[in-house]
Amino acid sequence: MQKRSLGDQPCPVARTLDVIGEWWTLVIVRDAFRGARRFEDFRAVGIADNILSARLKKLVAEGVFERRRYQEHPERFEYVLTEKGRDLLMVLGALGLWGQRWTRGPDTTSITHEECGHRVSLRAWCDECARPIDLSEIRMPRMIQPSVPAAG
Amino acid sequence: MQKRSLGDQPCPVARTLDVIGEWWTLVIVRDAFRGARRFEDFRAVGIADNILSARLKKLVAEGVFERRRYQEHPERFEYVLTEKGRDLLMVLGALGLWGQRWTRGPDTTSITHEECGHRVSLRAWCDECARPIDLSEIRMPRMIQPSVPAAG
Repeated sequence: MQKRSLGDQPCPVARTLDVIGEWWTLVIVRDAFRGARRFEDFRAVGIADNILSARLKKLVAEGVFERRRYQEHPERFEYVLTEKGRDLLMVLGALGLWGQRWTRGPDTTSITHEECGHRVSLRAWCDECARPIDLSEIRMPRMIQPSVPAAG
Repeated sequence: MQKRSLGDQPCPVARTLDVIGEWWTLVIVRDAFRGARRFEDFRAVGIADNILSARLKKLVAEGVFERRRYQEHPERFEYVLTEKGRDLLMVLGALGLWGQRWTRGPDTTSITHEECGHRVSLRAWCDECARPIDLSEIRMPRMIQPSVPAAG
């Protein structure tokens, strides 16, 4: 299936999905946070080699990973998250928290607060008011007016 | 391309991606937050009808949307986010914030704090310590040991 690009949409959600929204991509990024650096580390999750190659190539082109040579003969490379890539931690955190609440299965990836050892969550936050805010305090622009029922 | 399921992985990130990780799915969910309810609302973004049908069907089966009949002759349905679906707002927020920082283009979807009108961000938060925490205070389990370089 040819994928239509989302990169030209006037929305940062769509443009982000254009970079990291392909199947497997966020699993690869997750594994990088867990310590994966080399091709064989990333393939351990069960991804096919040709897909993994294509995803890594795109992520390097997008600046999410930096490709570094770690061996000369034969040449071998490892993939290290850039600042842009490390900044995806919030995305992974949000996905993980949703999955903890709404899917069933073991969780071997809990993210904890180093100081106290408790699990980290995410809160919506207002920099201006310097406090966490509830979802009920959020205003979202209503871009789409629901359609009027068609006559007949 | 046949997609391998991520639903049986011992990781809530992977299981979440199994539910909402297909191309277009989060764009559909985003549009629901912006007011889309009906098939013609969702297709406005440019998604092909057959893909939209398949995505909505899966999201209803997963309990992200509830399908409600709004007209009898002919029967027509609209798609309303459930609590499970509304809980994806954090995921969309994280994607949007990353896109604001790391992609270029207009942003017509800013989420603001109703009370003060300023933009909402996301912070990692420790419930135990009742305070926002920096990424440097987070501990993540290192599941994958980097491979030892192959001899030769």
